[in-house]
Amino acid sequence: MKRFLLRLRFVGTDFVGWQVQQNGYSLQTCMQDALEKIFGERLDVTGCSRTDSGVHANDYCMCFSVDTDRACDRISFGLNSVLPDSVQVWRCEEVAEDFHPRYHVTAKEYLYRMYDGRAGDPFLRGLAYHYHGTLDEKKMQKAADAFVGRHDFASLMAGGSKIVDTTREIYWCDIKRIGHEVQLRVCGDGFLYHMVRIIVGTLLFVNEGRFSPEDIPEILAKKDRSAAGKTAPAHGLYLNRVFYEPLEEVKRIGRKE
Amino acid sequence: MKRFLLRLRFVGTDFVGWQVQQNGYSLQTCMQDALEKIFGERLDVTGCSRTDSGVHANDYCMCFSVDTDRACDRISFGLNSVLPDSVQVWRCEEVAEDFHPRYHVTAKEYLYRMYDGRAGDPFLRGLAYHYHGTLDEKKMQKAADAFVGRHDFASLMAGGSKIVDTTREIYWCDIKRIGHEVQLRVCGDGFLYHMVRIIVGTLLFVNEGRFSPEDIPEILAKKDRSAAGKTAPAHGLYLNRVFYEPLEEVKRIGRKE
Repeated sequence: MKRFLLRLRFVGTDFVGWQVQQNGYSLQTCMQDALEKIFGERLDVTGCSRTDSGVHANDYCMCFSVDTDRACDRISFGLNSVLPDSVQVWRCEEVAEDFHPRYHVTAKEYLYRMYDGRAGDPFLRGLAYHYHGTLDEKKMQKAADAFVGRHDFASLMAGGSKIVDTTREIYWCDIKRIGHEVQLRVCGDGFLYHMVRIIVGTLLFVNEGRFSPEDIPEILAKKDRSAAGKTAPAHGLYLNRVFYEPLEEVKRIGRKE
Repeated sequence: MKRFLLRLRFVGTDFVGWQVQQNGYSLQTCMQDALEKIFGERLDVTGCSRTDSGVHANDYCMCFSVDTDRACDRISFGLNSVLPDSVQVWRCEEVAEDFHPRYHVTAKEYLYRMYDGRAGDPFLRGLAYHYHGTLDEKKMQKAADAFVGRHDFASLMAGGSKIVDTTREIYWCDIKRIGHEVQLRVCGDGFLYHMVRIIVGTLLFVNEGRFSPEDIPEILAKKDRSAAGKTAPAHGLYLNRVFYEPLEEVKRIGRKE
């Protein structure tokens, strides 16, 4: 038996998220279907995280084990030829037998794409959130800075989650404007349910003057979801990078693109 | 009566091209439907060119005349709120009564997007042509240089066209690599039916060694479609810029992005 780590890029619009759901096609099922076509058997697959319906990925990691002599590049080539064009494997590597794509993650980076052009951009539909108004990326960055560090993020977790320990560490939370587009990159040791989308929604409240950047510590201190902003739409969100490197390494190289 | 020029951006995948067709929804019909919702009457619209089914636009120009007091930005805002998100107006301006969006064009620039990553890019599906192999952009540029200037392009025109004068002038034909993506930008005083897609197909034959860059003058001299390369797929093609400025001005400023 050999164990393989696949890194995927996918358009989330076409799927109900990673996990098998009753109401549509999941990425997990999609990958199992493709692996079955290549290896002739139904294999178990393990993903690096749940992802919400509609969320995209530039880097989603998953593992499977199989008895095979095929080289890694033949596996990824074979899978890409049977996968729909909305999901593709960009890397396949052999890993240790006990490698776990979720437990062994040291950090994850999410990207949130939004833009404030007056007209919508047809080429960004479903891929970035069209904000009707002007985004003040400097003001938003001031507020974003307050999320960096080790905090209890209970105020930024959607209801219905069974998580008890809501403390997470954020390594960076950077906002950058490229023309009409404003991108948020946030990297941390882990994220609560809807946490990135609520971070974005809270920064949009700051943009609109409903919160000031100085309010963020108080919002965190309240440990109450209703203290934070709205949940930003799923279609602007991308799981951007998954790190298995030691944390020092992530902090040294990770912030660069 | 006032006459207005609209500049559009659209994802061509959703339409059968500009012109009204039996087999699907055309951009012309789409724009007439939207204008009718705003002005309450069916207006005639004139486009800057036919575009093939599936071809995209970053800048498509069209005109209509109407008796109105509305300001330009109210017209574009109103249209964008009733148009599907696959087509949006990014500029509306009042023009002279006799302005013609096709006859008054001084130059048009097309963009062709292709990429040669080994895996497909889910975020480029329908928006760029995935080339299976490696693109040698320097070799392709050498061949592209031979298209620049005034030439008879009969070899690069699809059959079935009734055009008699097949001479056109190309002002620039530039190839640029950005990561895995290779972009061609070609600007000229006019283009024959499928001409840009046949230029791309011919450059791909050069890339594959089926033609050398030095063969281009001979291909042009043959004035025979079968001398050139294949027609590249429509989904990589964008009408990128339409110029109404005097030609000296286009040549001075146009090549910059």
